[in-house]
Amino acid sequence: MKNESFVIGIDFGTLSARAILVNTSTGEEVSTSVFAYPHGVMYSSLPSGKRLRENYALQHPDDYLIALKSVIDGVISESGIDPTRVKGLGIDFTACTLLPIDKVGEALCMRSEFSDEPHAYVKLWKHHGAAREADEINALAIERGETWLDTYGGTVSCEWAFPKIYETLRCAEEVYYAADSFVEAADWLSLLLTGKQTRSATFAGYKWLWNSKTGYPSNDFLKSLDSRLDGIVGTKISENVLGIDKIAGYVDERGSRLSGLPVGCVVAIPMLDAHAAMPALNITGSGELMVILGTSGCHILNSSEEKEVKGICGYVKDGVVPELYTYEAGQAAVGDIFDWFAKNCVPASYEREAAEKNIGIHKLLREKAMLLGCRENGLVALDWWNGNRSVLVNPELKGMIHGFTLLTKPEEIYRALIEATAFGLKVITERYGESGVSVDKICAAGGIAMKDEMMMQIYADVLDREINIAASTQAAALGSAIYASVAAGEYSDVVTAAEKLSKKSVKRYSPIPENVAVYKKLYEKYKKLHDYFAELGNF
Amino acid sequence: MKNESFVIGIDFGTLSARAILVNTSTGEEVSTSVFAYPHGVMYSSLPSGKRLRENYALQHPDDYLIALKSVIDGVISESGIDPTRVKGLGIDFTACTLLPIDKVGEALCMRSEFSDEPHAYVKLWKHHGAAREADEINALAIERGETWLDTYGGTVSCEWAFPKIYETLRCAEEVYYAADSFVEAADWLSLLLTGKQTRSATFAGYKWLWNSKTGYPSNDFLKSLDSRLDGIVGTKISENVLGIDKIAGYVDERGSRLSGLPVGCVVAIPMLDAHAAMPALNITGSGELMVILGTSGCHILNSSEEKEVKGICGYVKDGVVPELYTYEAGQAAVGDIFDWFAKNCVPASYEREAAEKNIGIHKLLREKAMLLGCRENGLVALDWWNGNRSVLVNPELKGMIHGFTLLTKPEEIYRALIEATAFGLKVITERYGESGVSVDKICAAGGIAMKDEMMMQIYADVLDREINIAASTQAAALGSAIYASVAAGEYSDVVTAAEKLSKKSVKRYSPIPENVAVYKKLYEKYKKLHDYFAELGNF
Repeated sequence: MKNESFVIGIDFGTLSARAILVNTSTGEEVSTSVFAYPHGVMYSSLPSGKRLRENYALQHPDDYLIALKSVIDGVISESGIDPTRVKGLGIDFTACTLLPIDKVGEALCMRSEFSDEPHAYVKLWKHHGAAREADEINALAIERGETWLDTYGGTVSCEWAFPKIYETLRCAEEVYYAADSFVEAADWLSLLLTGKQTRSATFAGYKWLWNSKTGYPSNDFLKSLDSRLDGIVGTKISENVLGIDKIAGYVDERGSRLSGLPVGCVVAIPMLDAHAAMPALNITGSGELMVILGTSGCHILNSSEEKEVKGICGYVKDGVVPELYTYEAGQAAVGDIFDWFAKNCVPASYEREAAEKNIGIHKLLREKAMLLGCRENGLVALDWWNGNRSVLVNPELKGMIHGFTLLTKPEEIYRALIEATAFGLKVITERYGESGVSVDKICAAGGIAMKDEMMMQIYADVLDREINIAASTQAAALGSAIYASVAAGEYSDVVTAAEKLSKKSVKRYSPIPENVAVYKKLYEKYKKLHDYFAELGNF
Repeated sequence: MKNESFVIGIDFGTLSARAILVNTSTGEEVSTSVFAYPHGVMYSSLPSGKRLRENYALQHPDDYLIALKSVIDGVISESGIDPTRVKGLGIDFTACTLLPIDKVGEALCMRSEFSDEPHAYVKLWKHHGAAREADEINALAIERGETWLDTYGGTVSCEWAFPKIYETLRCAEEVYYAADSFVEAADWLSLLLTGKQTRSATFAGYKWLWNSKTGYPSNDFLKSLDSRLDGIVGTKISENVLGIDKIAGYVDERGSRLSGLPVGCVVAIPMLDAHAAMPALNITGSGELMVILGTSGCHILNSSEEKEVKGICGYVKDGVVPELYTYEAGQAAVGDIFDWFAKNCVPASYEREAAEKNIGIHKLLREKAMLLGCRENGLVALDWWNGNRSVLVNPELKGMIHGFTLLTKPEEIYRALIEATAFGLKVITERYGESGVSVDKICAAGGIAMKDEMMMQIYADVLDREINIAASTQAAALGSAIYASVAAGEYSDVVTAAEKLSKKSVKRYSPIPENVAVYKKLYEKYKKLHDYFAELGNF
């Protein structure tokens, strides 16, 4: 037992961070800890009360530091082990979630002169303030025939780094010039822990228009976009991009104070949150799709094929597993839609009923929605409450519900919203298929996949595929721990580590033929409205 | 004072009956009384618990009899007058609201053998069970080139008499054969009060495909539709159709027992509820549109022009005022939509807020919606929660809301629903204009028009017209009293009586130019979606 070693994986999600402490010898998940960010997501105002424009979604960088310390303390004290036995740390993060920092790594929003400046804060992945900038980048890239554009399904999303940085330059030039660097929050934590500035290749590849052969977009392109961007690559954007087989560094004195980890503990190159889950679920083969269902949806496919797939978010070679191409597509809102509904559209009588039954409102709605069964002549919704990421790549699109009558009940709307997210996923899997990248096996992860049996059955019926559910409630955190175990030298590579430490699927949903037939018809309706409103655009 | 005489008008609405007692000499509204139907609208089950099919909307005929007695007792006792001084009774009713009766006028559903048979009950105007029958009538009428079809905008609605009767023949043949007559509930009350079977020309003209020149559809047509309908006109459908200048009869012994009115009291020919309001609001000129806003919307236009207007519900000469053509168009749901919303979509936190402020939920929603102002980039809804009556004449159409984001609040949806009903009305007024029937003046009546200032301002802004609001809270009942005063010989004709007894408008809403400009753009969006979903049909 004395020779056993431990690693910690931390998943920084949209609303909270979760850590897991893993025994690398036995694979045991020894302890876990969760911490919710005190400021959550700032949609409408800064801590000072200053109002934000519409479409903003900011976070407070201090929340990540408090969370880091809290969850590491949490897993160590719960496990009872000596902290010095922690050999490695892996982290994964939402992306592109970026912030401007100064030379010593301090976030600019912490300076008093910028405490009231939205652009000095963290722009969360779902910050949609840079739509105009994304449009201009797209137009210029098309005009110049930039080849990197094809890698990203032909469109740069306003959620990515360059639009967000360009937005800062335009709206808060003084922040732009004061920034020593613009960094992903994940790379920022690496920097604070190890004292070294590195960039994770998965973030760079998916969100920063970087690839291993040609690097970032050319300075010539960036200058043409705006002369003030001249020279940004190499100065405010580090070119020290490292792949998953490298390490970020070792915890130094400052890092140890911040985290409670021992000096010298190895820190793995951080991963995109969604991608980190793949080794945790042992999804390492070609044709295997991981569907992560949380507040939003992220769908990641391993494939031996290199194809251009219109409307997906991009692909990276060796992004998760050596030698495979890893494609990413996304749904900008999934659980967020149901939460919106629960908060805004559920009558008091239902709240009373849930309270009487002593169950949550979502559970009550699911129970009622389940009784409805699968019906052809009800509501059809478009799941665009937060725009459409894949395959339309248009954050301005909005949600729609059709089919209301005077007898429509809340649970019918709720069910239609669930079905809409399933149809949204089906559009993505069909797009892969049409582009020559086959989807052979589907594995679902994330809180919703674990908890919501009705929804998973609907997904199996809509997609007409078996859906395998992964066992871990914290797949991303476990994945980060797996990368940490490789970085710590406990395993030779991620495939071997995944084989040993991953969780096997615990549940399988099989399509029910009658439902498949009904959903085939409903999907035709969805697709018709999908194409019509996509064409209408920002209506 | 001894020579003063009185009349009673009763408005039989969807959920209740309201009576008004009027002094015909002074015009004073002496007393009023309201009675809610005990069974309300039966959407899902009969009193026995027997389940109804979807789209059914039935009523219990006994409710009308109880209401008749209750409201007459009510106005007489409140006024303190001797019942013998009541010289006339006028009634108006929803339509087409029909029932099968036997030889002595008893409703068939009162017989034990039919108490569990939906088709033996009253089919309320919004009963939508006869969609298939309406389709077949339309197809045959087009095939045979029936000229009466043009009078009705080219389409027979499933809410009208022939589809509803044909539905009974098909679904409950034994009820069809047991019926001595199929009658409007209004004409049924006339029969019970006077002992004479008459048919009101306004009901026959708008809902029974009747016109004064050619009568009902030919027996040849009806036989072609179904051989079992051979001979129905003249047997189960009386041809004793009388116009507004005639009287239905005099209260007999049975009528006196039922109503509490003196034997010999004159009973006017009943009117459609909506039309009855016109003289009450002194809307007697050409180009004057009355907009009645209640659970549904009914929009009635007087015009000296005789034109065919596609998609309106029909027109009748001398229907309200001698020598004018009266066109009717409708919105199948207005207040019903807001009630649906309040019942199904308002979160508990809003209910608590309303309770704390001690105001109704509609008032709270209006307050919040008012603060939003008139905005271009919000939600757009199609107001088809109960199908579309005008100008699409398709009861199968369903409601839609577009424009949801994660920040959408309940009051935004509420406001969009109000705007949608205004846009629906604008489609109707535009159709009149395009068809050469000009709309020069708009007068709004009904509960919503009186109470909802925000909504009326939205209507003025959307329609870009002044909206005059009528004073009476009970315009239809007052109109019935006016017709009663003519029937009782107190006035020579309805125009003279209206001049004396009508209420003048109390309030005027003028369009606000900035809002007009925004709504013009929003209406374009509405119209685009209107046309798209109209084309999609029963999606």
